[in-house]
Amino acid sequence: MSDKTFPFTAIVGQNEMKNSLILNIINPSIGGVLIRGEKGTAKSTAVRALADLLPEKKVAKCPFHCDMIKKDALCPYCTEALEKGIKIEEESVKMRVVELPLSATEDRVAGTLDLEYAIKTGTKKFEPGVLARANGNILYVDEINLLEDNLVDLLLDSAAMGRNYVEREGVSFSHPSKFILIGTMNPEEGDLRPQLLDRFGMAVDVKSEKDIETRVKVIKRRLEYEKDPDEFAEKYESEQKDLQKKIIDAQTRIRDMVIEDDAMKMAVEASLYFGVDGHRADITLLKAASAHAAFYGRDTTIREDVASIANLVLTHRMRRNPFQESMIDAEELNNWIKNI
Amino acid sequence: MSDKTFPFTAIVGQNEMKNSLILNIINPSIGGVLIRGEKGTAKSTAVRALADLLPEKKVAKCPFHCDMIKKDALCPYCTEALEKGIKIEEESVKMRVVELPLSATEDRVAGTLDLEYAIKTGTKKFEPGVLARANGNILYVDEINLLEDNLVDLLLDSAAMGRNYVEREGVSFSHPSKFILIGTMNPEEGDLRPQLLDRFGMAVDVKSEKDIETRVKVIKRRLEYEKDPDEFAEKYESEQKDLQKKIIDAQTRIRDMVIEDDAMKMAVEASLYFGVDGHRADITLLKAASAHAAFYGRDTTIREDVASIANLVLTHRMRRNPFQESMIDAEELNNWIKNI
Amino acid sequence: MSDKTFPFTAIVGQNEMKNSLILNIINPSIGGVLIRGEKGTAKSTAVRALADLLPEKKVAKCPFHCDMIKKDALCPYCTEALEKGIKIEEESVKMRVVELPLSATEDRVAGTLDLEYAIKTGTKKFEPGVLARANGNILYVDEINLLEDNLVDLLLDSAAMGRNYVEREGVSFSHPSKFILIGTMNPEEGDLRPQLLDRFGMAVDVKSEKDIETRVKVIKRRLEYEKDPDEFAEKYESEQKDLQKKIIDAQTRIRDMVIEDDAMKMAVEASLYFGVDGHRADITLLKAASAHAAFYGRDTTIREDVASIANLVLTHRMRRNPFQESMIDAEELNNWIKNI
Amino acid sequence: MSDKTFPFTAIVGQNEMKNSLILNIINPSIGGVLIRGEKGTAKSTAVRALADLLPEKKVAKCPFHCDMIKKDALCPYCTEALEKGIKIEEESVKMRVVELPLSATEDRVAGTLDLEYAIKTGTKKFEPGVLARANGNILYVDEINLLEDNLVDLLLDSAAMGRNYVEREGVSFSHPSKFILIGTMNPEEGDLRPQLLDRFGMAVDVKSEKDIETRVKVIKRRLEYEKDPDEFAEKYESEQKDLQKKIIDAQTRIRDMVIEDDAMKMAVEASLYFGVDGHRADITLLKAASAHAAFYGRDTTIREDVASIANLVLTHRMRRNPFQESMIDAEELNNWIKNI
Amino acid sequence: MSDKTFPFTAIVGQNEMKNSLILNIINPSIGGVLIRGEKGTAKSTAVRALADLLPEKKVAKCPFHCDMIKKDALCPYCTEALEKGIKIEEESVKMRVVELPLSATEDRVAGTLDLEYAIKTGTKKFEPGVLARANGNILYVDEINLLEDNLVDLLLDSAAMGRNYVEREGVSFSHPSKFILIGTMNPEEGDLRPQLLDRFGMAVDVKSEKDIETRVKVIKRRLEYEKDPDEFAEKYESEQKDLQKKIIDAQTRIRDMVIEDDAMKMAVEASLYFGVDGHRADITLLKAASAHAAFYGRDTTIREDVASIANLVLTHRMRRNPFQESMIDAEELNNWIKNI
Amino acid sequence: MSDKTFPFTAIVGQNEMKNSLILNIINPSIGGVLIRGEKGTAKSTAVRALADLLPEKKVAKCPFHCDMIKKDALCPYCTEALEKGIKIEEESVKMRVVELPLSATEDRVAGTLDLEYAIKTGTKKFEPGVLARANGNILYVDEINLLEDNLVDLLLDSAAMGRNYVEREGVSFSHPSKFILIGTMNPEEGDLRPQLLDRFGMAVDVKSEKDIETRVKVIKRRLEYEKDPDEFAEKYESEQKDLQKKIIDAQTRIRDMVIEDDAMKMAVEASLYFGVDGHRADITLLKAASAHAAFYGRDTTIREDVASIANLVLTHRMRRNPFQESMIDAEELNNWIKNI
Repeated sequence: MSDKTFPFTAIVGQNEMKNSLILNIINPSIGGVLIRGEKGTAKSTAVRALADLLPEKKVAKCPFHCDMIKKDALCPYCTEALEKGIKIEEESVKMRVVELPLSATEDRVAGTLDLEYAIKTGTKKFEPGVLARANGNILYVDEINLLEDNLVDLLLDSAAMGRNYVEREGVSFSHPSKFILIGTMNPEEGDLRPQLLDRFGMAVDVKSEKDIETRVKVIKRRLEYEKDPDEFAEKYESEQKDLQKKIIDAQTRIRDMVIEDDAMKMAVEASLYFGVDGHRADITLLKAASAHAAFYGRDTTIREDVASIANLVLTHRMRRNPFQESMIDAEELNNWIKNI
Repeated sequence: MSDKTFPFTAIVGQNEMKNSLILNIINPSIGGVLIRGEKGTAKSTAVRALADLLPEKKVAKCPFHCDMIKKDALCPYCTEALEKGIKIEEESVKMRVVELPLSATEDRVAGTLDLEYAIKTGTKKFEPGVLARANGNILYVDEINLLEDNLVDLLLDSAAMGRNYVEREGVSFSHPSKFILIGTMNPEEGDLRPQLLDRFGMAVDVKSEKDIETRVKVIKRRLEYEKDPDEFAEKYESEQKDLQKKIIDAQTRIRDMVIEDDAMKMAVEASLYFGVDGHRADITLLKAASAHAAFYGRDTTIREDVASIANLVLTHRMRRNPFQESMIDAEELNNWIKNI
Repeated sequence: MSDKTFPFTAIVGQNEMKNSLILNIINPSIGGVLIRGEKGTAKSTAVRALADLLPEKKVAKCPFHCDMIKKDALCPYCTEALEKGIKIEEESVKMRVVELPLSATEDRVAGTLDLEYAIKTGTKKFEPGVLARANGNILYVDEINLLEDNLVDLLLDSAAMGRNYVEREGVSFSHPSKFILIGTMNPEEGDLRPQLLDRFGMAVDVKSEKDIETRVKVIKRRLEYEKDPDEFAEKYESEQKDLQKKIIDAQTRIRDMVIEDDAMKMAVEASLYFGVDGHRADITLLKAASAHAAFYGRDTTIREDVASIANLVLTHRMRRNPFQESMIDAEELNNWIKNI
Repeated sequence: MSDKTFPFTAIVGQNEMKNSLILNIINPSIGGVLIRGEKGTAKSTAVRALADLLPEKKVAKCPFHCDMIKKDALCPYCTEALEKGIKIEEESVKMRVVELPLSATEDRVAGTLDLEYAIKTGTKKFEPGVLARANGNILYVDEINLLEDNLVDLLLDSAAMGRNYVEREGVSFSHPSKFILIGTMNPEEGDLRPQLLDRFGMAVDVKSEKDIETRVKVIKRRLEYEKDPDEFAEKYESEQKDLQKKIIDAQTRIRDMVIEDDAMKMAVEASLYFGVDGHRADITLLKAASAHAAFYGRDTTIREDVASIANLVLTHRMRRNPFQESMIDAEELNNWIKNI
Repeated sequence: MSDKTFPFTAIVGQNEMKNSLILNIINPSIGGVLIRGEKGTAKSTAVRALADLLPEKKVAKCPFHCDMIKKDALCPYCTEALEKGIKIEEESVKMRVVELPLSATEDRVAGTLDLEYAIKTGTKKFEPGVLARANGNILYVDEINLLEDNLVDLLLDSAAMGRNYVEREGVSFSHPSKFILIGTMNPEEGDLRPQLLDRFGMAVDVKSEKDIETRVKVIKRRLEYEKDPDEFAEKYESEQKDLQKKIIDAQTRIRDMVIEDDAMKMAVEASLYFGVDGHRADITLLKAASAHAAFYGRDTTIREDVASIANLVLTHRMRRNPFQESMIDAEELNNWIKNI
Repeated sequence: MSDKTFPFTAIVGQNEMKNSLILNIINPSIGGVLIRGEKGTAKSTAVRALADLLPEKKVAKCPFHCDMIKKDALCPYCTEALEKGIKIEEESVKMRVVELPLSATEDRVAGTLDLEYAIKTGTKKFEPGVLARANGNILYVDEINLLEDNLVDLLLDSAAMGRNYVEREGVSFSHPSKFILIGTMNPEEGDLRPQLLDRFGMAVDVKSEKDIETRVKVIKRRLEYEKDPDEFAEKYESEQKDLQKKIIDAQTRIRDMVIEDDAMKMAVEASLYFGVDGHRADITLLKAASAHAAFYGRDTTIREDVASIANLVLTHRMRRNPFQESMIDAEELNNWIKNI
């Protein structure tokens, strides 16, 4: 009876995807990742593997698992408790991957009136939905481009505000809903609206391996894992520990990160050069660069950090002309970075 | 645990947007602002910052926070109390930014039958919706061009009449709903119908900064604020106080504002010259000009006041031919104003 | 705390609109007015102003305010009372402008089952809707061309029959619903179906003033009224009294109006000449002409009365060819009238 | 307080419409009339006038007013009573014009579960709808071409079977629903599907009068009636009595009507010649011809009777080619009849 | 008070339709008949007449009238009773024609949760629908091509499996639903999807008679029947008895029918020659041929039986090229049969 | 009273379909079969026949029949029992073919809130749906290409994850849902989206026999079976026993299957050569090849096993150009396999 997750460090290749996930874990305000690629490229496996790698953390025992360290965004229950000076109970939980099934209904995502409670007690209570469970966790949406528009809007609104505002069916409620949004999509099944694309902090394109040896390696690891998950996991234990430590260190280090002026200027120049509108790209570039610096053990973010993560942040935000593939833009980006 | 708002006076640039917001606060009968621009241009930040700047005011303790100074538009409960000579309790509240999520349902916006009360007591009671909470406040609708048509109609009807009439699902009710409507939209995601455009008192176009130095300044302030909101806010305290005082003074001064005949004539001529139909533009021009005069400490509205705000009121009301950008009209407007 | 209505006699210009409203008040069987024009042309103001001008009248205290003078169309409750010889209580009420919001649902317009009563008592009762409140009053529908088709049908059916028949959701009920239907529309937002157009007794086109002096006058009166409604109303009190008296006299005089054969023949000839089908136009022409004669203190309706109101009744009923503006028809009509 | 109906015999012109109504009253199995024509051509007036003309008849006191003379189609209650030998109470009622509003819902037309009864007693009972009230009466549908398709199907199914079968929302019930279906439509607002056209026994086209004298006569009678309905009705009393007697006599006479073989052959030849499919046209021609013979006091139906009513039965059943007006077919029909 | 059905043997002509109905009664596994033809061709009359002709048979007294002779498909109640050794009560019933109105809702066709029972007892019970009543009977659907797709699927699934599986609204239930499906359609009102066509065992095209003498005969019989159904029925009593006996004998005889190898081969060859896919056509040809042999009193099915019924089974299954009328195929079929 | 299933070994021809079914039974992780072909090709018969062939197996007595041998995916009830150390009762059941009717509603497929339980006890309980019954069984969907998109997504999500996640209507629940999905479709009625195609482990095309002798054999067996199912089944009993034993042996043998490196390499090469994206095809090829080796009694999977099953796994995953039939690809595949 084993449900051991496939170890993150056992994933063959797919470095961009792995990097983007790690940077978001270090600094969740980067704003999530959109993973574009064909079916069968281990996207779901990688996300679950990363969550599994992380240690437990302390949260309030309320239905929203409010973050009691930052305390900057509490649910109405915790707010009330704090105001009344009541002690809020806490518990230790692992980061979860909250799955949003395509068949989910809007009321179950946003939360709704708790009918059971209403009927029993005659008073209204909010019944939390997926956005409540997602608070402090990863929200994973497979085939996000097939999700109904109203649900996509709901997700991105909550992701942007870090809070879920509910105004429907007799309920008026809001609660913290800070999560790392990971969406996957198959580009052959239609695209996201440009405005939604822009709301993802990062985007990566994944491809299946073309090299026969590597591909056999992928299959072998998979079949080996399926045969005996525990034995397989054991092999990667020390690699896993190392990576966990690097991530936790980076999470601490980033709090006092200094960003060099040159790095700031480079971020602005990159956005301007590639015609990316608004200030969101600038700020995301710097947040991602800071996470990158922290991951490599530095306390100062420099131009090289911006250069390293620029393609993850900018590629999906460039205005594409219809006959131009995104790959070409990526090349141009790389050239530009080199020339700087 | 700080949720300090970003200070209004710390916003870099964006003067048209900031002016239009201030003028509406001074004279809410101007009719709101439509802010058009790309994502990530601090629209939401500016609105919240302005509301935060204002002092508390006294209102009735009813669910609609009726204005007990003007008393010209009361809810049925306050009307009944007044008729019966019952004293209406009051409380001091800050102006709020009421958020209308795109996923809101019509019954939650307009209000609906209070089922809980109906089940418990067997009698009907109106359960207030977003339009009730909006009374006396700012109603903020992000991406208003994506809002369903029936909700847009609902908002603009209430905005025009200052009252929300509900005729649905067993309820017949009306209550005051005077609010400053702030809508934002990304012009790339489709436009509003011309008739709806006309219902906004003012419209501004915002663009992200193209100058590198300014843009770095924007990012720096943002990152500084995110690191320590309290410390950041402290720096701007005196600037904030000054602006608050200027606004409050203007609110008093405008009550006895005298409008020069020349200013009136100029407003009519501007509307006629630019082919803006109806008398609404004329009146809005004069209301905005009066707010402008009041803000600059004058008791008389003159031609220069009309000239200063004309582009905010007229640009979005001009009939555009399909190949003509709104910017060109704006230029023409500026020339016309100068020649007068 | 004043909610004084803007005085009817203070409205600048817009004579066609004002005349059509007055004639309908004198003879409600004319069938309402459709006011076509741009936003901001005081349509709503004029309608409210006229209702405000009229004196109170006696009606039954039933939910439908049955007309106890004509008694030709009573609600089931009054009918039952009369049959049983029970005295029906009466009360004096002012004519009201009943507003139909675009967001109204069909059940609230037509009326529906009173769920509260049904749950409490276990028996069914009809809960009156907007069409009940409209009985004996003005029903005002702003932007009637945006109203859902089923609601428009509902209104026009009731308007035609003077009675609202409800067959839905467990209710079978009918009650008098005689009202003056005033619809407004902006012709740029789409048109009404020709069959619906024909159901309006009259139609007028309103335009905003192009003359600068007049337009300044419009604004001045408006701003003056907004500043102090009571003081403003006082100025027009004697003009208002005069008009009220003229209307009440006309309402009495029309009961014994004699229509000259020549006037009848002219009405028929006008309809035939302009290709207006059905007998409705003929009869409406004569009813409007009679109201016109009565307003001018005559007891006989003559050719000149028909000529005076012909454009209000016929213009919107002419078959237009697609490249022909309604104005051209109106000109032709005027020529025809002159030549006769 | 008079609600006197406009007398049938006071209607000016419109002979085809009047004849078709009378023939259907004499023999309801003809299958109703579709009246096509412009608004304002007294269609509704004529139908109400005819119903008003007829005397009372005896029916069961059940909710469906079962016909206790023919007894060939009873409701479940009457059937049960008869089987148990319980005497069925009867009452005398006038023929009614049951109005079907366009806004009617399917459950109110077909009938539905009586929720009130179900909640009170815990057992199910059928709550009759419009089709129940229509039994033995005239069902009048104004603008039948605007009625939703499902309702049209419902009406025509009941009309064809003389019974309403309900299979919905927890109810399984059937009851007699024999009625004379009168539909009106404005041909400019779209047509009925050919299959539905065929379900009407007869169809007539009405036009407004073009002759000035006649048209003045129409208006005069209308205005005279509106002024004093009672006085107006008195003038036509003896004409009304005569017509009533003729109709009642015809209703008796038709029971033993003999149809000459030549008449039968002519009906078949007419159908074949004009390419009218199915046997329905043949049978309807003979039923209408029999009613015609009966109205003229004869006991034998002859070729001339078929010729007199052929256009009412055949015109709307002819296959029209798209460029051919129905009038042309009518002419051809008349020629054909004459040549025979 | 007579509701005597029109006798089957009094129907003039329409031999293909009559044969197809008789063969399906003899062997219901043939799979029903689709009758295509114009309105007014006595389709409904023929179906009712045939059902009326048959004697009563014994069935279980359960809501599904389970067949207690074959016992191969019982409802859950009968299955439970059998398992527990409880005796199942039986009753004698006539075959019914169960009518499926176009307005039927899916829950009433498939059956649904019995709300009454659930509310009273707190436990769930299945409330049978039309498919339950249809078990062992004829299910008649007029204008089946106008039936909503979901209902058509429902019917054909039940028809194919002989059982109705319900998975909806809190109910999971299945019961036998073996019926002879008779659908009618007017080919001018659109067609069925080819896949649905194939699900009908047989199809016939009916036309109205073109011969004047025959057509007069049709009308005479109809008018005679309408005048006095009892007297008319008496005339055909002995013919009816004879046909009934032939059908009952055939139902017995078919149980031990031997099919000659040559007949089987011919069925396969016919299907192949006409490009009819799948084995369903082969098997249906042989089932229909067996019913044919049994009707003519033989115990062996031979080539001639296949030839006699081939057009009823194959015509609607042939792939038609778009410019080819079904009649041409039929001719080709006849030639092919003759040449064999 | 016999409901003996048609024996699997009595099915004439259709080897690809039979093989694909057997391989999925041996290794359910292959991922189901999509059977494409015309109506009447015994698809349903074959599936039921195979399920009938297999012996009983032990499962938990919970509503989801959790697999207590692997225990790697338990329902919340079993998980709770295990955690509390409560013994889980088991029972022996046969593999079932769970039928998904096209008319199924989403709540009945996914499961929903148990209203009965909620009303009675006031607490919520999950009411299992089709996906619960499918756990450990075959889920059979006839005409899967006609199934509504939301249901197809639901099925394939559960199939991929082996678990059904429900987030709707007040329920948040998940349970194991491992099943062999068998879909059938008629390619003439539209196709599945490519992304859905790829989710099926295997696909086969079935055709009806064209050879007359074989086709007569098919019919004879069918008619023989229909006459006396028990007698027919007896004839095939020993063949059935042999096949059952081979399958059970293979199920054991596959647990320790060794896959040769050459076989792995061949799988990858085949996927690459035919442009099949993602790693899913590689892995499915090897799983199917292992099942094939096991069925033939070997403990090592070799190149020949991959070659034998390659067309079942790859054909439906190849990118087809629009003018290219799938048959051509299949040929190319066969050539490629031979050349290796």
